[in-house]
Amino acid sequence: MTDIVAQLIDALGDAVSTDAAQLDAARADKSGHRSGSAPLAVVNARSIEDIQATMRIATATHTPVVTRGAGTGLAGGAIAASGEIVLSTLAMDRVLEINESDLLAVVEPGILNGRFNEILGEQGLWFAPDPASKAISTVGGNIATNAGGLLCAKYGVTRDAVLGLKVVLPDGRLLTLGHRSVKGVTGLDLTALMVGSEGLLGVIVEATVRIRREVPGTLATIASFYPGVRDAAAASAAITAAGLQPAVMELIDPSVLRAIDAFAGSSLAGRGNAHLAVQFDGPGAAEDAHRALEIITELGGDADLTTDRDEAEKLLAIRRAAHPSLAALGTTLIEDVSVPRTALPDMFDAIAAIEQKFGITIPTLAHAGDGNLHPNFIFDGPIVPDQVWAAADELFLAALKLGGTLTGEHGIGILKKRWLGDELGEDQLELQRQIKQVFDPLGILNPGKVF
Amino acid sequence: MTDIVAQLIDALGDAVSTDAAQLDAARADKSGHRSGSAPLAVVNARSIEDIQATMRIATATHTPVVTRGAGTGLAGGAIAASGEIVLSTLAMDRVLEINESDLLAVVEPGILNGRFNEILGEQGLWFAPDPASKAISTVGGNIATNAGGLLCAKYGVTRDAVLGLKVVLPDGRLLTLGHRSVKGVTGLDLTALMVGSEGLLGVIVEATVRIRREVPGTLATIASFYPGVRDAAAASAAITAAGLQPAVMELIDPSVLRAIDAFAGSSLAGRGNAHLAVQFDGPGAAEDAHRALEIITELGGDADLTTDRDEAEKLLAIRRAAHPSLAALGTTLIEDVSVPRTALPDMFDAIAAIEQKFGITIPTLAHAGDGNLHPNFIFDGPIVPDQVWAAADELFLAALKLGGTLTGEHGIGILKKRWLGDELGEDQLELQRQIKQVFDPLGILNPGKVF
Ligand SMILES: Cc1cc2nc3c(=O)[nH]c(=O)nc-3n(C[C@H](O)[C@H](O)[C@H](O)COP(=O)(O)OP(=O)(O)OC[C@H]3O[C@@H](n4cnc5c(N)ncnc54)[C@H](O)[C@@H]3O)c2cc1C
Ligand SMILES: Cc1cc2nc3c(=O)[nH]c(=O)nc-3n(C[C@H](O)[C@H](O)[C@H](O)COP(=O)(O)OP(=O)(O)OC[C@H]3O[C@@H](n4cnc5c(N)ncnc54)[C@H](O)[C@@H]3O)c2cc1C
Repeated sequence: MTDIVAQLIDALGDAVSTDAAQLDAARADKSGHRSGSAPLAVVNARSIEDIQATMRIATATHTPVVTRGAGTGLAGGAIAASGEIVLSTLAMDRVLEINESDLLAVVEPGILNGRFNEILGEQGLWFAPDPASKAISTVGGNIATNAGGLLCAKYGVTRDAVLGLKVVLPDGRLLTLGHRSVKGVTGLDLTALMVGSEGLLGVIVEATVRIRREVPGTLATIASFYPGVRDAAAASAAITAAGLQPAVMELIDPSVLRAIDAFAGSSLAGRGNAHLAVQFDGPGAAEDAHRALEIITELGGDADLTTDRDEAEKLLAIRRAAHPSLAALGTTLIEDVSVPRTALPDMFDAIAAIEQKFGITIPTLAHAGDGNLHPNFIFDGPIVPDQVWAAADELFLAALKLGGTLTGEHGIGILKKRWLGDELGEDQLELQRQIKQVFDPLGILNPGKVF
Repeated sequence: MTDIVAQLIDALGDAVSTDAAQLDAARADKSGHRSGSAPLAVVNARSIEDIQATMRIATATHTPVVTRGAGTGLAGGAIAASGEIVLSTLAMDRVLEINESDLLAVVEPGILNGRFNEILGEQGLWFAPDPASKAISTVGGNIATNAGGLLCAKYGVTRDAVLGLKVVLPDGRLLTLGHRSVKGVTGLDLTALMVGSEGLLGVIVEATVRIRREVPGTLATIASFYPGVRDAAAASAAITAAGLQPAVMELIDPSVLRAIDAFAGSSLAGRGNAHLAVQFDGPGAAEDAHRALEIITELGGDADLTTDRDEAEKLLAIRRAAHPSLAALGTTLIEDVSVPRTALPDMFDAIAAIEQKFGITIPTLAHAGDGNLHPNFIFDGPIVPDQVWAAADELFLAALKLGGTLTGEHGIGILKKRWLGDELGEDQLELQRQIKQVFDPLGILNPGKVF
């Protein structure tokens, strides 16, 4: 063990940390989970060469490596334990190129999404993937989890924004995948395979991503309140069914609304039990928003429309207050099922039935524009109660039955391993394991995660 | 051999054909290549079960299988030879579901893209992938090649339109990949890996695809002529650099223009040496087209703008006449390099230099909106002359040097195998081969193609 650390220090010097606080931090992410023990060391990589050197030592000594971005993951994917090397990308945070004409940028993996967008913003450009955690998560982590967010019904998920990747394999070899051109079909699409691979196949050390020009025109935003969550879900389904494409469509259920009121001192629940925020951008924004407003009103919603950017920011701030408001109530397990958009009302019915059956409340948020729900389980202490896992189990099966998936954007990590086979089936699971083995024959990359 | 055919007939009856004409047709696709001998049999599969039965026999007898859609491929991927079973999907041509609210459809693989779009069109819907061959190619073939087309700078390539797939493995097992929801990150993204896999990994037997609502509003189309091809390329680069997003932007070089004139009796070359067609759709179409017109005029283009749909159709018909016009001149080898959009003028310079060096003409078309060029080599007889391969070799290397790829949309098949390593590098090539082996351990799916 100490021999491995000595080898790391020999090759990487200062980049290697065995500082107790850093080791401790690497035992957790934002999933609420925490490993039982501290890892061997944290390598704060400064360059591709550092990562290659780390991986060569890991391969030579058969030492497990956990790649870590900002550690904001909600599935436990970046959690490390005893005997493992943590490979942190946070120090590799440069923007290597911004090419406005070709609408692409080249970045190191450790740059925060929010920081990258700040830099792009100076030139009137932006990077579309926008997890609610954009201020605190890395672009490399976004790619490794295929992060979604608020805007993806209209602007796509992270996969849609990745043109090419540089990847270091477990044995230290560097691969260049994809290209700078918009199109390309040379061989199997390993770029797409790397996106969402949760640190299992290789270390993403550089990314060529698609960027966009800022969308000109007004921003038209609707805040709407409903008697119940099913009504809000029905309104959101009706808006998409009418052919409208909001940039953002976020739903908040009664218990989340009450939690926000308690946390922020607001009195939203006075206006209704469920909240739906709908934002349109681009040339037709105002017109589309008026049509959405009609639909909402027809369906019994109580709604305001604004084209003022500050007002709109305040509205979306309600949504952003949801996470801290729930966290104030206890330990939260944030789930992440996703269903076809029109199945949203049915999924809310299924959640209500599970609440009834288990005698618990499951405060739920939804990226309603793409059918992605975040039901939250709240409990005391650090251990997820069996009762909660039993309820979560029913939740996952309900989502699968509706043609959905058990994770829309957070990934499998360690939290959802036991349900993976339910969704993929044994044959596919076995195939996935074998692909993992092709990349990582020694099984040293993120062992015990996903599979 | 006859034993294998007997087994197939035993299991599949009528679906098995050994008709000489059908066997002969399966020796070629639209690449100009033709295998040296006829395959064993063609299975005209009617169902997933037929495909499973075929694959089980193929595995038991170690017999190679070539999956074939409409055989319009330009890389030789669907070409079969002696000892091989051809598995045709053409009879599996049903649309199983159209879900307007969730904007998805479920189809069998053998339906023609054009036919699928006709059916969708009756409900005001469409399927965005639009290879120039849409009228004659299958959706399964489009997925297996990750087909591009005229609209993909704005509406994406085929990969962007695929949500889920059913796939039969070489041993006959059926896998269900992906989901019906917009988002989903359960395990490795095998759906994306299957897209563009050219029949190497499994047989695509059903697809859940994203569909769109027809884009409302005017269609604004510009026809423009230039002194030279570099000027046309510069105009197209300037249009994207100005932040405009045409739905279509198609470039035609002087020799293609002359070929069209000769074939269609038109007199386009009288107005200029190079042609650029630019089409805008959606709410801002007319305004965007006016801005594009200004840019074009500033750069010395001679241009007309129309908002009449029939006029626009006539304009795009010029582009569609390109393939038959060139085919009338001799055997054509259609190349398919792709570069970052702004490298388009440089790529035309590279082509001009290669024309000079080899003393040949390389008539070239480009999907200018996404930097995808189709340089054509024209020669007599069925065999590609060494001289042409030497020139093509320089062409590929020039594209790679500009940050591009040797195939933007047609794939590797058999035609580009020898350059695959140049683009991927040995390490990646080896990894790809191993992934192929995970899916197809006996190597019976499309042997000798791509790798
Ligand atoms: C308040 C809050 C809101 C959130 N909202 C969203 C949301 O809206 N949408 C969403 O999708 N997620 C959301 N998340 C989850 C999380 O932020 C995302 O998954 C994010 O993409 C993780 O990035 P990270 O840098 O923190 O990665 P980490 O947590 O450090 O790592 C995540 C996984 O990726 C792997 N990984 C990281 N970097 C690399 C690399 N360079 N190469 C290979 N593998 C790597 C790790 O091994 C791990 O398996 C939220 C989290 C929080 C706390
Ligand atoms: C005039 C003309 C214009 C063209 N324009 C374009 C263009 O603009 N953009 C473009 O991308 N291409 C274009 N092409 C090329 C071709 O049409 C596309 O590659 C098309 O997607 C092939 O579809 P197909 O049904 O003919 O497939 P095939 O030619 O039959 O097969 C192509 C490959 O896919 C595999 N395959 C087919 N079906 C399946 C399945 N169900 N499961 C697994 N593997 C399968 C085959 O094994 C083969 O490797 C053009 C061709 C012509 C002749």
